[in-house]
Amino acid sequence: MAISNIRYGQGVTKEIGMDLQNLGARKVCLMTDKNLSQLPPVNAVLNSLAKYGINFQMYDNVRVEPTDQSFLDAIQFAKKGEFDAYVAVGGGSVMDTCKAANLYASSPTSDFLDYVNAPIGKGKPVTVPLKPLIAVPTTAGTGSETTGVAIFDFKELKVKTGIASRAIKPTLGIIDPLHTLSMPERIVANSGFDVLCHALESYTALPYNMRSPCPSNPINRPAYQGSNPISDVWALHALRIVAKYLKRAIRSPEDHEARAKMHLASAFAGIGFGNAGVHLCHGMSYPISGLVKTYKPKDYNVDHSLVPHGLSVVLTSPAVFAFTAQIHPERHLEAAEILGADIRTARIKDAGFILADTLRKFLFDLNVDDGLAAVGYSKADIPALVKGTLPQERVTKLSPRPQTEEDLSALFEASMKLY
Amino acid sequence: MAISNIRYGQGVTKEIGMDLQNLGARKVCLMTDKNLSQLPPVNAVLNSLAKYGINFQMYDNVRVEPTDQSFLDAIQFAKKGEFDAYVAVGGGSVMDTCKAANLYASSPTSDFLDYVNAPIGKGKPVTVPLKPLIAVPTTAGTGSETTGVAIFDFKELKVKTGIASRAIKPTLGIIDPLHTLSMPERIVANSGFDVLCHALESYTALPYNMRSPCPSNPINRPAYQGSNPISDVWALHALRIVAKYLKRAIRSPEDHEARAKMHLASAFAGIGFGNAGVHLCHGMSYPISGLVKTYKPKDYNVDHSLVPHGLSVVLTSPAVFAFTAQIHPERHLEAAEILGADIRTARIKDAGFILADTLRKFLFDLNVDDGLAAVGYSKADIPALVKGTLPQERVTKLSPRPQTEEDLSALFEASMKLY
Ligand SMILES: NC(=O)c1ccc[n+]([C@@H]2O[C@H](COP(=O)([O-])OP(=O)(O)OC[C@H]3O[C@@H](n4cnc5c(N)ncnc54)[C@H](O)[C@@H]3O)[C@@H](O)[C@H]2O)c1
Ligand SMILES: NC(=O)c1ccc[n+]([C@@H]2O[C@H](COP(=O)([O-])OP(=O)(O)OC[C@H]3O[C@@H](n4cnc5c(N)ncnc54)[C@H](O)[C@@H]3O)[C@@H](O)[C@H]2O)c1
Ligand SMILES: [Fe+2]
Ligand SMILES: [Fe+2]
Repeated sequence: MAISNIRYGQGVTKEIGMDLQNLGARKVCLMTDKNLSQLPPVNAVLNSLAKYGINFQMYDNVRVEPTDQSFLDAIQFAKKGEFDAYVAVGGGSVMDTCKAANLYASSPTSDFLDYVNAPIGKGKPVTVPLKPLIAVPTTAGTGSETTGVAIFDFKELKVKTGIASRAIKPTLGIIDPLHTLSMPERIVANSGFDVLCHALESYTALPYNMRSPCPSNPINRPAYQGSNPISDVWALHALRIVAKYLKRAIRSPEDHEARAKMHLASAFAGIGFGNAGVHLCHGMSYPISGLVKTYKPKDYNVDHSLVPHGLSVVLTSPAVFAFTAQIHPERHLEAAEILGADIRTARIKDAGFILADTLRKFLFDLNVDDGLAAVGYSKADIPALVKGTLPQERVTKLSPRPQTEEDLSALFEASMKLY
Repeated sequence: MAISNIRYGQGVTKEIGMDLQNLGARKVCLMTDKNLSQLPPVNAVLNSLAKYGINFQMYDNVRVEPTDQSFLDAIQFAKKGEFDAYVAVGGGSVMDTCKAANLYASSPTSDFLDYVNAPIGKGKPVTVPLKPLIAVPTTAGTGSETTGVAIFDFKELKVKTGIASRAIKPTLGIIDPLHTLSMPERIVANSGFDVLCHALESYTALPYNMRSPCPSNPINRPAYQGSNPISDVWALHALRIVAKYLKRAIRSPEDHEARAKMHLASAFAGIGFGNAGVHLCHGMSYPISGLVKTYKPKDYNVDHSLVPHGLSVVLTSPAVFAFTAQIHPERHLEAAEILGADIRTARIKDAGFILADTLRKFLFDLNVDDGLAAVGYSKADIPALVKGTLPQERVTKLSPRPQTEEDLSALFEASMKLY
């Protein structure tokens, strides 16, 4: 497994101008979204670039929950700019867009589908050298600063998919907890649920030595290798932080400690799932996001409807872990205990229900919408949701328990209402 | 912080020929020591090289506890061979020698002292590109497969020192627990003590935000950054494994689980201390090894006297942690608890004594020699031992508590007898 460089500390963003000087960058592409372009994290970066006299162009057209079209716009900007380094300041949407821009600007003759995950795209391996990319996360969620993954919504197919390659992993992640202070409540909550699911899914993913086929040549093995003794360390550690600090981080913007801990947990969980992978909550979330109708979440300063990624993964989590627990019940029970369940008298065969109940209680306490119905879906949508999950086999096959289409239907149905 | 690639699993060594093919290697340098050249780990590598038709030359002249002269011999071999990849199969002695050979063969006009740590050498930054190096550890100790460090004994000065640069970190570490099965009892013990001290020292090292000077340009910051929230995860995790499995691994070569866990713990602790650093046990160990008189440890199949590295660090550990505990007593107490102490009624001000006692008991149970006296030192040697510690400021300054020469004298004196 491989792990990116990260630098952690309050205020470390002020060094970014120096990092770019050290990289010998002469023309930098700074990416962010419209909302963030007015906020302290982007300001801190601009100040440092100015201080060190870094020549740059800013692109603030990143779409929150990016699409193929919004990726292509950013790629076009990158191609024109002939940049020699990239800086992404934002949540997963910005970091992922910047990874794609760097990739396709470095491989200008490639077709967009070339690097998109199979079976939707061609899933070609990346062999061109990319430019350095410094990621500055401003949510405590995706861990994208540590992963070689970029996710987008494929509009035509109404399904989310992505690009996965070690080559697009950021050169450096700058984890500066000051940036989390400007996040409104629901963004802390939803991005925090993403951390929660990264940790739970990677800890319960199919073990690395049970994955099949296991390509005999190491170079052909996927980035998502299944759970393993190293990703377990990160997943459990992130889960413990989520259990202790997520509620505090959501409830009070003044709780610097809680927000800082969640910012680190996001990177920890990213290192975990970036090596082990995620499974059903993520696989099923992609159509939940992709098929969005009119849902507009609170606190998201955007003009299109969307189901935020973290919400789209967490809403199915009670059903998913009730379903998967029969494979590693002891891990499910351990996770429930970390999240606050009293398991002293628990029976191992109830592990799934216990974890599901613990998650439901956790979500209820945090005022999370009551299931898929609350974000606009009804029973009639289930076939489309299932259909959108089927091409996500890159992740769904990492589920410890294999699933039929009927299983997926049942999981969506069980997620319509939570409480 | 940066972490190397590692691959873990029983039997994964058989893939090494493929890895070298993937790297396009046409002439490989295989390094090991005389003893290992007859044992299963080297055999497994040779089989894979043969299977994939890899062209290689073998160097089995590595010295156990290398010296400047033994490094130079290996460097000469590497320069002559014009290799395009390196494979190191062995303990820290082999991996470190191979790192040095790769470095100087890639920088053929450099003087040997150029890259050696200041103030003994010039401590120049490495700017030349190195060849890929695959490290296959056969002890469960140094974690050298994950670090940018190579240690040797500078004969003229009678002191150990080293080379520290991210550039010499192996490209890939292959952690195959099968290789630990051939280790005799004292090699398991001594290399395990190294893991123990890497974990304890990096967990109690000066925190990263208290280090001074802290060079304002990130590129000038040392590899050893002080303890930090990320290295803490690795250190604690490694310490828990040591507490649970080291005794079992030492007592029974048949206990595959315990030996496998220790093999992973060694890499975990390596990632921890490779970023956080070590402090007094290591700083003081270098003269303890360097000034060796006639001590010949059991189970080491070599013809020169030596104090094995792990033994040289652990013998001072009770005294060291009794000394440092006043700075982070709660961490010292936590470590004692992990190692088995009952701390329910402990007073925080006794943290140092409690950890020291716990370590003494741990060592006594494992038949460790009774202090520095048992490896050949007496009070009369203390001035020389102190003198040999002074140039180790790269690590000693990471001690949470600053130390005078008198303090060092007292620490050596307190380590003469343990029980
Ligand atoms: N690459 C990966 O490894 C990975 C992993 C999980 C999710 N994702 C993807 O990442 C995207 C979601 O990213 P996200 O959850 O980080 O949110 P986001 O990037 O979509 O941002 C959500 C909203 O929060 C705002 N915002 C972000 N930081 C803020 C701050 N500090 N203060 C105020 N407002 C702030 C943004 O402007 C935006 O309106 C999805 O597309 C998802 O699929 C990627
Ligand atoms: N680079 C680093 O980060 C780092 C860290 C700590 C220590 N070190 C250095 O590493 C050296 C010590 O390394 P070590 O403790 O791994 O031991 P080692 O490499 O010195 O080997 C010790 C003995 O064990 C034998 N041996 C090794 N593996 C065996 C196996 N599987 N079966 C049977 N015999 C085996 C060797 O042949 C040798 O005789 C010291 O020079 C020390 O200073 C380096
Ligand atoms: Fe996610
Ligand atoms: Fe060591």
